[in-house]
Parts: sequence; structure tokens; C-alpha cells
Amino acid sequence: MFKTALAEAQDAIGGFLDHQLARLGDDRVAAGMRYATYGGKRLRGFLVLETAGLFDVPPMQSLFAAGAVECVHAYSLVHDDLPCMDDDDLRRGQPTVHRKWDEATAVLVGDALQTFAFDLLARPDAGDAAQRIDLVATLAHSSGAAGMVLGQAQDIAAETAGAPLTLDQITELQGNKTGRLIEWPAMAGAILGREDPEALLIYARAIGLAFQIADDILDIEGDADKAGKALRKDAEAGKATFVSLLGLDGAKARAADLVEEASAALAPYGEKAQNLQALARYIIARDM
Amino acid sequence: MFKTALAEAQDAIGGFLDHQLARLGDDRVAAGMRYATYGGKRLRGFLVLETAGLFDVPPMQSLFAAGAVECVHAYSLVHDDLPCMDDDDLRRGQPTVHRKWDEATAVLVGDALQTFAFDLLARPDAGDAAQRIDLVATLAHSSGAAGMVLGQAQDIAAETAGAPLTLDQITELQGNKTGRLIEWPAMAGAILGREDPEALLIYARAIGLAFQIADDILDIEGDADKAGKALRKDAEAGKATFVSLLGLDGAKARAADLVEEASAALAPYGEKAQNLQALARYIIARDM
Repeated sequence: MFKTALAEAQDAIGGFLDHQLARLGDDRVAAGMRYATYGGKRLRGFLVLETAGLFDVPPMQSLFAAGAVECVHAYSLVHDDLPCMDDDDLRRGQPTVHRKWDEATAVLVGDALQTFAFDLLARPDAGDAAQRIDLVATLAHSSGAAGMVLGQAQDIAAETAGAPLTLDQITELQGNKTGRLIEWPAMAGAILGREDPEALLIYARAIGLAFQIADDILDIEGDADKAGKALRKDAEAGKATFVSLLGLDGAKARAADLVEEASAALAPYGEKAQNLQALARYIIARDM
Repeated sequence: MFKTALAEAQDAIGGFLDHQLARLGDDRVAAGMRYATYGGKRLRGFLVLETAGLFDVPPMQSLFAAGAVECVHAYSLVHDDLPCMDDDDLRRGQPTVHRKWDEATAVLVGDALQTFAFDLLARPDAGDAAQRIDLVATLAHSSGAAGMVLGQAQDIAAETAGAPLTLDQITELQGNKTGRLIEWPAMAGAILGREDPEALLIYARAIGLAFQIADDILDIEGDADKAGKALRKDAEAGKATFVSLLGLDGAKARAADLVEEASAALAPYGEKAQNLQALARYIIARDM
């Protein structure tokens, strides 16, 4: 059930992005945008479709917000992979954009993917004008200098700082770097459904943190081939992670607690939230 | 009159951006955003204020769109100055962001400035919901992979191409790279004034091209100290420019014709457009 729903969402979001990006033509930046948005688990887009689905928003409408958050996620990865940032050669098992083309192309592809996210949210089919401007405002807030980009800067600052981060600091950092863009889909679903986002935000905050703890566990226990990227970089760099701070068992226990918390927050939505329930469990069980 | 109006607009836009950016705190990315938006001629923001002013839109409202276009302009400069792009050390007489801090900071500062532009357009005081979403849609279209970023990619492709560009090719390239972000303020003024943008777009297209021709002339005749950046880079790189294609006199004559064309398009607005008339003349007369 959940696996089928996730696979269908992946197809729908991939098809939507292909269709929308095809209009940009075939120059190098457009080709890079398609390359960078190809594949991936589409968890953020799936979250938009599922939370909006709780309020019976048609998928044809919520695909715009789902596509937008996937574009922001893709832009952040393209820029994060640059030599001056994380300097990664592989992403999802394929050469990163600056390795396939060059650094200038990667800078422009990331820039244009961010713009494209706001372009998608502004389309008439994405909602009425009030909903669309709410989506723009909240996505800008979640992804910009008070959200995701702040987290990326905090991450860079942590690497050059003398002392490893504390648990509070790493929780704040990851909340910004990864969490904000997992919370936004819940906000988007509530905006599209004209409903209070509170319970969904508690859910999203919990799975966002669980996701990052699972990532740290995967960095230690995972298989680089399955992950499609280099692993054990954090441990080798001596960076503080949830595993280094809590221990492997402590990190697993914390992630499991967060999944319980996320699950409890969905209680008001009953059966309709079963895919979101399953997603919370999947996030700490995934081996890819 | 014009000089006073421009100076007042520069102060108003600078003050507005300082105030809005101050809320982001004092981490490195926020500091870089303030640094990158400090100074500059604010021609794009001035164009928003003046075109919106034709329709009696209050400056307190149009400042959001004026600030947004200056943020997009600033982001494009920060990324354009990166070593993998134009590799410039100076901008407005000051070290570029990656020279003052580092490349990773410059990537993030540019990213966050783009986000901030859309953040500003989504603010309740920027217009009603329909106007705000129109501003977002048109800015995304003008600045993204079908606009400014396309022009930047065309510029990079031209450098590695075997043959220099033709006049048609360079006109298209510059229309994307520089023109779209000079046309957008005219569009924004019309959206805010709820008026047809046609005449203002003809004006903006003409001054955008005149601006780029003037830039090519300045690159040959200008003073690097006054310009605050390195000159004669294009000529030394053997790139086709309006001057190399039209000759110095031909380029000056073409710029003067475009100013006439721009001026004629403003006829319907009479006296109210006198600052826009003066701006068109200023653009080809500036020595800074």
C-alpha cells in the first residue's frame, strides 16, 4: 500500500517535472536542471501530496507545490556538491552536475532550479492567488537565510569551529539545514487544504529529525553502493553527529521515539493518514 | 530634479533593504547579504518606483518590488563574480563576496538573496494577493532559465565557441542577461498600477539595450577607478561586443537612437515621466 503510493507519487512528480522542464528547451542549463531533478526518493514531494490529500486536494493541484519543493531540494544538492562546499563527485550514483558539466553550469543550474520552484508555485493551477502567495512566502522563509541556507552556513561554520557541536546545536543546525524543507510540505498541504497546519507540523518536525538521525546511522552502517554516494565522510572528518553524541543504540532509540511522536500527531486524521504513518516508519528503516 | 530623485530613491531602497535584512541577524550569510546589496546605482529599483509612480502607487508599496529586483541583481553579481564564472576580485570598488569571505559563503549569499527577493514580493504590504503572485510569476520568468540565467549561460557558451557572436546573437544574449531584469521593473510598475505594460516595456527594452551598448563603450573608454571594477576584459578576451561589431561611432549612434525610441514610448505619460526620460539619457551619458 505505502510502497505503491510512494512509487506512484515518484512517477507523478517525475513526469510533472519532466513536462514542466521540457518547455525550457535544450540548452545546457535546462539539460542540467532535468538531470539534477531526475530520480531521488521524492519524499518531500510525496509529503505534499499526502498531506494535501488529507483534505481532498486534487493531486493535479498539489503537484505544483510537490514539484517546487523537489526543485528547491535539487538546487540545494547541486550547490552543496560544489568543490567549495562538500566537494562530492557522486549523487544518486551519478556524477554530480559540476562533474558532468562544470562548476559554472552547476552554479547556474542551482540558481535556475530555485527560480523554477517559485515559478511553479505562481502558476494559476497551483491554487487561488491567496494560497499561491502563502506557498511562496512560506517556501521562501523555509529555504532562505532564516531556514535551509542558514543551516548550510551553520554546518560550514561548525567544520571550522574548534569544538564539536553539542546535541542542542546539532539539533538546531539540522532543523534548519534539513528540517525546514521537510516541514514545508506539511505547511503546503495545510495551505492547499485551508486547514490548520499545527498537527502536521509536529509530525513533520519529528520525522525531519528522525530522518537526519537515520542519515547519521546510515553514514556508519550503510552501503555506499546502495546509498549512491560516499559514506563515512562525517565520521572521518571528526564531525559531531547524532551517533557520535548519543551512541549508535541511543541514536536508534531516539529515532524510534520520534517516529512514535510523529505517529501520535496524525491521530486526528485516522485511516486517511496511513501512508504518512508508514512514511514515518520507512524513514528510519530505509537502507538507501 | 532627476539627480535628486535618483539620490532619494537610492536612499529609500538602501534604507529599506538594510531594515529588511537586519531582521536576519548577524551570521555570516546575513552579513554577506547586506554587504552584497550595499551601494550600487539602484537603477532597477528606481525604475520600479518611477513606473509605479506614473500610476500613483505609493512608494511604501513599490519599495518591496524595488528591493526584490535589487536583491536578484545583487545575487546575480555575487555568483557571476565567482572564480568559476567571471573570477572578479572587485565590485563597486570593494572586494567581491568570495574575496572578502570565501567561495562557499558567496554561493550561499547569492542563493539566499534570490530567496529573499521572492520573500519580499510575498509580503502583505507589497500588493494584494493577485498583484503579488503576478510579481512573483513575472520575476521568476525574467530571472530564471528562460531569462537572465539563460543569458548568463549563453555568455559562457559564447566564450568557448569557435566564432565570435553576430550582432543578432549578442543582442539576444544581452537581452536575456541584462535586458530581462531591466524590463521587469516596468512590468512591476504596471502590475502595481493595474495598467497595460506595453508602452513601458518598449521603453525598458530600449534602455536595456542602450545600457549594454553603453557598458561596452565604457569598457573601452572608461576609467577603472570610477567604474570600481576591471575594464577592457572583453576586448582583451577577444569577445564580440557592440563596439567590436558596430565600431565606436556606430555603437554611440545606436545607443542614441535607442534613447530616442525609449523617449517616444513615454509620450502618453507626459510630464509625469520626466524622470524616466532623464534616466534614458543618463544611461548612455554615465561615466560610472
